[in-house]
Amino acid sequence: MRIRIYNARVLAMEEGRDIFDGEIQVEDGKIAYVGEGQKDAPGPWDREIDAGGNVVMPGFKNAHAHTAMTFLRSYADDLPLQEWLFDRVFPMEDKLTSEDVYWCTVLGNMEYLTSGITASFDMYKKIEDGARASADTGFRTVLCGSINNFGGTVEDMEQEYLKFNDFHPLISYQLGFHAEYTTGREILEGMAALGQKYRAPVYTHNSETENEVAGCVERYGKTPTALLDELGMFAYGGGGFHCVHMTEEDLKICKEKGVWVVTNPSSNLKLASGIAPVRKMMDMGIGLAIGTDGAASNNCLDMFREMFLVTGLQKASEKDAAVVDAMDVLRMATAGGARAMGLMDCDTLSVGKKADLIMIDLQQPNMQPLNNIAKNIVYSGSKQNVKMTMIDGKILYEDGRFHIGVEAEEVYRRANESIVRMKAE
Amino acid sequence: MRIRIYNARVLAMEEGRDIFDGEIQVEDGKIAYVGEGQKDAPGPWDREIDAGGNVVMPGFKNAHAHTAMTFLRSYADDLPLQEWLFDRVFPMEDKLTSEDVYWCTVLGNMEYLTSGITASFDMYKKIEDGARASADTGFRTVLCGSINNFGGTVEDMEQEYLKFNDFHPLISYQLGFHAEYTTGREILEGMAALGQKYRAPVYTHNSETENEVAGCVERYGKTPTALLDELGMFAYGGGGFHCVHMTEEDLKICKEKGVWVVTNPSSNLKLASGIAPVRKMMDMGIGLAIGTDGAASNNCLDMFREMFLVTGLQKASEKDAAVVDAMDVLRMATAGGARAMGLMDCDTLSVGKKADLIMIDLQQPNMQPLNNIAKNIVYSGSKQNVKMTMIDGKILYEDGRFHIGVEAEEVYRRANESIVRMKAE
Repeated sequence: MRIRIYNARVLAMEEGRDIFDGEIQVEDGKIAYVGEGQKDAPGPWDREIDAGGNVVMPGFKNAHAHTAMTFLRSYADDLPLQEWLFDRVFPMEDKLTSEDVYWCTVLGNMEYLTSGITASFDMYKKIEDGARASADTGFRTVLCGSINNFGGTVEDMEQEYLKFNDFHPLISYQLGFHAEYTTGREILEGMAALGQKYRAPVYTHNSETENEVAGCVERYGKTPTALLDELGMFAYGGGGFHCVHMTEEDLKICKEKGVWVVTNPSSNLKLASGIAPVRKMMDMGIGLAIGTDGAASNNCLDMFREMFLVTGLQKASEKDAAVVDAMDVLRMATAGGARAMGLMDCDTLSVGKKADLIMIDLQQPNMQPLNNIAKNIVYSGSKQNVKMTMIDGKILYEDGRFHIGVEAEEVYRRANESIVRMKAE
Repeated sequence: MRIRIYNARVLAMEEGRDIFDGEIQVEDGKIAYVGEGQKDAPGPWDREIDAGGNVVMPGFKNAHAHTAMTFLRSYADDLPLQEWLFDRVFPMEDKLTSEDVYWCTVLGNMEYLTSGITASFDMYKKIEDGARASADTGFRTVLCGSINNFGGTVEDMEQEYLKFNDFHPLISYQLGFHAEYTTGREILEGMAALGQKYRAPVYTHNSETENEVAGCVERYGKTPTALLDELGMFAYGGGGFHCVHMTEEDLKICKEKGVWVVTNPSSNLKLASGIAPVRKMMDMGIGLAIGTDGAASNNCLDMFREMFLVTGLQKASEKDAAVVDAMDVLRMATAGGARAMGLMDCDTLSVGKKADLIMIDLQQPNMQPLNNIAKNIVYSGSKQNVKMTMIDGKILYEDGRFHIGVEAEEVYRRANESIVRMKAE
């Protein structure tokens, strides 16, 4: 497949390169050209797309997700956290079949496409069903291990690591466990050893709530970050999802060990967890990425909402309207996310990189006038502006229609059947 | 015009009435029928619309706006508040012509339509130009007076009050001044007398920032709310925009005097003003409505973002995921907003009320599965879900297209011409 997108405003997200008028050429899933418009671009093309002055930029990366949890969207809201988790979420998760996970993952991936998200870092049960769903729909997915006291062993994880890094070109796998508070010391030590064996980063939920940190301090006399570091978990880097309640010492460890922070502002608001100190993390030079978390907690899988909140919440909590510039947020949502999850060839629009890109419609009232396009995207953008989403050189979503090998209505029907059955069981 | 919308899920927002399957009939701009589907609904109809199971509900009311400020969208962001206002916003506002205000108001109204907003409470300069823009595009607008030390007299306001309440069926006018901190005591006393003369409510920006409250305490020895109450400003009720920094006493005054609070959460984040105590206001029984504020501070005019933030920010600041239920938020965004701005016949879908309504598309991934439709709208909804927006019985926006008597491209061109000229001046 050779696709040419011309007459575009290109926001390549390469360091030091401003937005420019030009075109992009895609060949065999990769970016073959980015630059000025080419009058005599060498054909033949499978498609030539006139961008009409709209923005072409790297797709957003959802760096923390539980994609199949779409089945619990709006099923358990406005509840205290404990009741939400133990009385509502866990009992329903026990009823999940492979088919449920498959179709609810497809549904989540579709929602990502509508929000210009071209990859997710997906931590969930029945991992092979989720992987098949993503591979079948053409959605790039980095699976994240999630073993804990209630399921999985370090040996299982090693097998998964080997299997899913050789499963499908769109699928990869990173080592991970659920969280310190759900995972005993023996497993944690095994995870650290596994990370070191494969010289691989390790990922986990970290310091999402005050209670979680207090519990760890009670158990080990130190914070989760300090404990994990001491166990050698971050010998090859890794990442923490949420990182809301972090000490100065914790942040220093992240900086020194190259541990990414994936912030999830909507989920942290809705579950009353708090506001992560993103501005401080930026000042310290910690790598930052953005995630939606799952639909049970967020409830929507929308990078535009997350981007606004990443900066808006910092401005309010720091009492300074100048902090966390829109371009910083765009970097977190694109290049930062890609690098955090190990997608080193999906970060920018550059020759040789994967063609995971989106077109942002400027011909909508919320994008006018064109004072500053990057700020428009972060502060005023919405799903309504996602005109096209391409992954691996294939257009999967365009002008409100999906091209994913299955009808949208079929996916909605399956997802509703799943939740109706589970409620009845 | 007679329009029938059948096969709908009707969310009438009447107290005690759940969402139900049925239809709505519209005649001469009013709701003529709401109830079960009528097989033999008496024709002829100008249009019969199969809602396909989608939601029909009252339009959202944007209860605090500066609509024409779209011209400054993304022009002055990531700046400290004082620099934003004095170095960026004010100098540009001085250059506004009537034409600028007209076209930038049309642009803002278009954006409202894409977000399912059917009325705005609009406080801005060159009020007649804004009024003409709204009347021409068919957008219901309640103008709000905004006199202060730098412009306008109480006598002007009385003339405006009489003129714009008899200007056009879609336009009305409420008494208002900019804010205590911009308005001297003499004008404030005149405003209070004017409110009493016409037995009318009075509206103003109130307690948006800590500095504003501290300044008033320094000037008068009391908070803005207490001062205005003492001056007799709220003899017939009224409303405060923002109300972020309110004392217990201030809130009691609001409750006793029937003063509406219009909360603007995105703007309060982005300008680092803080988080309004909405949950406490609810507990005290204070009337609540939601506004976007202007595009210079927000930057998008989107009720979905505001709705999520109204509840999300309370959950986080109160450290309780159970506070401010989704239905409460929907009431603020519809019936609450309508009543706050005096649109007593635009609050619910009921026979005899104005046909200001919207259709919410459920056939999108972010609305699936259908566990709870109200929660889906508040927590997961976006502009992408607005399938149709009707004001006064006329469909002004449907399936991404505007029907407002002017082409969208023409409006974008005019808005860009305005800002380019102003920057060059």
